[in-house]
Amino acid sequence: MIYLYTPQDMAAYRDALQQALPGRALACWPAAVDASQVAHAVVWNPPAGFFKGMVNLQAVFVLGAGVDRILKRDDLDPAVPVIRLTDAGMAQQMLEYVLYGVLHVQRYMGQYRRQQAQRQWQPVAATPAAQTRIGVLGLGEIGGRVAQALAAMGYAVAGWSRSGRQLPGVEDFTGDAGLPALLARTDILVNLLPATPATRGLLDGRMLSLLPRGAALINAGRGEQLDEAALLGLLDSGQLRFAMLDVFEVEPLESVHPLWSHPAVLVTPHIAAMTLVTTAVAQIAANLQSLQQGLPPQGLVQRGRGY
Amino acid sequence: MIYLYTPQDMAAYRDALQQALPGRALACWPAAVDASQVAHAVVWNPPAGFFKGMVNLQAVFVLGAGVDRILKRDDLDPAVPVIRLTDAGMAQQMLEYVLYGVLHVQRYMGQYRRQQAQRQWQPVAATPAAQTRIGVLGLGEIGGRVAQALAAMGYAVAGWSRSGRQLPGVEDFTGDAGLPALLARTDILVNLLPATPATRGLLDGRMLSLLPRGAALINAGRGEQLDEAALLGLLDSGQLRFAMLDVFEVEPLESVHPLWSHPAVLVTPHIAAMTLVTTAVAQIAANLQSLQQGLPPQGLVQRGRGY
Repeated sequence: MIYLYTPQDMAAYRDALQQALPGRALACWPAAVDASQVAHAVVWNPPAGFFKGMVNLQAVFVLGAGVDRILKRDDLDPAVPVIRLTDAGMAQQMLEYVLYGVLHVQRYMGQYRRQQAQRQWQPVAATPAAQTRIGVLGLGEIGGRVAQALAAMGYAVAGWSRSGRQLPGVEDFTGDAGLPALLARTDILVNLLPATPATRGLLDGRMLSLLPRGAALINAGRGEQLDEAALLGLLDSGQLRFAMLDVFEVEPLESVHPLWSHPAVLVTPHIAAMTLVTTAVAQIAANLQSLQQGLPPQGLVQRGRGY
Repeated sequence: MIYLYTPQDMAAYRDALQQALPGRALACWPAAVDASQVAHAVVWNPPAGFFKGMVNLQAVFVLGAGVDRILKRDDLDPAVPVIRLTDAGMAQQMLEYVLYGVLHVQRYMGQYRRQQAQRQWQPVAATPAAQTRIGVLGLGEIGGRVAQALAAMGYAVAGWSRSGRQLPGVEDFTGDAGLPALLARTDILVNLLPATPATRGLLDGRMLSLLPRGAALINAGRGEQLDEAALLGLLDSGQLRFAMLDVFEVEPLESVHPLWSHPAVLVTPHIAAMTLVTTAVAQIAANLQSLQQGLPPQGLVQRGRGY
């Protein structure tokens, strides 16, 4: 039996799974089921104790690319394979989100917004894409795609990853020594790192201060990677010019949080790359078939590295 | 002698022209010169009477792609060749501008901005690029480039031009009959038409009403092509959802104009595609050389068609 839990779009996922896997029994939380009969769980952030009693669980399919929360759970046997979505239209969506932020900064859209509010007609000299230096943190399937697409559009792109990755048109920075060097040459920093113990708290005040004065930040990685208080200080002092934030230390962002009302901050509610139901379900169905045939599924998580 | 007039960046153009054409005499308005000695004028919107007495004028180089104003002047002999910029980085800039507007609509950025002001965390279901129908009016060198690039990014793109143009991935609509058909299938209308008598007033209330309810408009063509009062009515009624406007019937946009304060309108001060000094001057220098060698210059305007 497949047991499904998702905080939104439950009916859409149920229908799509039934259609893609017509022969399989499917139950949706909170339907009462015999936990020992659950062979596969399809989930996004299920409630505490969800996996309790699932002694015959063969695999967990996560409805997203981020698996940090699921790997931390104490109700899930670490021996059970966890399979994440490798790309259900998410790289394309992430590119769109990042591109909007890049264009907002490069084309002075925030300044024109302020001028509009004051009925001011005041052109600003254009900054060509080739003189706009973008630094992408994380060169996995999503970050790598974003970095390459921005380079193809003419931006001066550098990328940083733990072990290095050669991508056409993207300057490669690697490891602990590479990060300060990348920051020092970056006008727009784009964080797309996966959530791992090694990336937690990486963007602290010291690191963010290495960006040139007037630089901007786009964070669509994880909130835990960014020191929000340090960011606010650097925005207030004018050291940083702008931040577009999709992820936060606490989500939903608390209603009293000063980020909501900061004039140099765009807040979006974790929408940069949303899972698309049909592509997600097609990927899960294909991976179930691989498992049944004894083949390795796409997106199998290695617990040691955390993704 | 070359005589230069531009309302901004005069010193930058002077220096770039001197460097590109070291042997040539160059004067900058308002320096007093013997008008009969002016062989070439390099201009953007020069004051009335500027060309008076230039009886030996061999060519006018316009510092932009739009030549409608220069062709209407009564102080310029219609026999003098007018040469416009064919692309001084302008297609790339236009693509950036249009892409920002498209992403703003497709990714619900206006809605997220309003939610941020109210400290609301409320994701909206994503609309994939493939389900976002864009209609591009004008498939010249700029419009054609924009339409192709949007299609390559996965959007459902159609284009309209007077005589038709086949572009990879772009559905082709042509002539008077094609325009209503294009509007009826378009979620985001992008106007990049040149200013000619035939395009003047084209986007009136009747035409704009053919767009599906909730459609959006990006106007980076000419202000005279759009009925601003009709647009405001359609935005107020909710028939149209959003407009991003870079050009206006009167520029600068008058400070009392209701477009400045409309919540569904982004106003930018004619900055979508700004002429870049170095690329513009390199093109002028190459065209001067062509003229001296009796070769046809790039961007020679045909007065009959208006561009």
